[in-house]
Amino acid sequence: MNREQMLVQAGSVPLMQVGEGIHRRVLGHDADLMMVEVRFAKGAVGALHNHPNRQVTYVASGKFEVTIVHESTVLRAGDSFFVPPSAEHGVVALEGGTLVDVFSPARGDFLGPA
Amino acid sequence: MNREQMLVQAGSVPLMQVGEGIHRRVLGHDADLMMVEVRFAKGAVGALHNHPNRQVTYVASGKFEVTIVHESTVLRAGDSFFVPPSAEHGVVALEGGTLVDVFSPARGDFLGPA
Repeated sequence: MNREQMLVQAGSVPLMQVGEGIHRRVLGHDADLMMVEVRFAKGAVGALHNHPNRQVTYVASGKFEVTIVHESTVLRAGDSFFVPPSAEHGVVALEGGTLVDVFSPARGDFLGPA
Repeated sequence: MNREQMLVQAGSVPLMQVGEGIHRRVLGHDADLMMVEVRFAKGAVGALHNHPNRQVTYVASGKFEVTIVHESTVLRAGDSFFVPPSAEHGVVALEGGTLVDVFSPARGDFLGPA
């Protein structure tokens, strides 16, 4: 792992559009742990979905309605949520904002060709 | 895992002082993945150390000099870093700020009696 893979400045990784009003960039990762920054425009929807990777997410900014296995709440900057493996979850951006998603193991599907 | 363990509002977990000018709270976690918020006063030092857990960290706010295996750089809000297992690392808070550390596997030593 080289210096650029360990010390990641925000501007060094391009954002990729992955949905309407949603942009993502993969930050530091290995096969077992992956951090991903996801930016949402106001009103953008991360539809309910699930994956075998466990996930923990930090709300860096904004205001989101977060649903995990039929439980919903509104989370703001400084709040966080944990998604057990294969648990259904989704978010709605009530304001524009940024989530920091971390997965274990890594989301291999985020590393394929764009 | 109950609702309170999945949807974690910032005010629901007390901060614990873990060093001079350093406070920590453990957010969502299971045995394989753990998110921890760490707040640093200006000038606080997270001394060089290492652990077998891999770590990825998001700079939520502030300005930090980050060192990983003898490489140092200054990181600001939105930047991040990855620490391979057992790699020596440390930070100096050049301004007060918050780091979001994520470990895999979880830091069992953070869960013992206070």
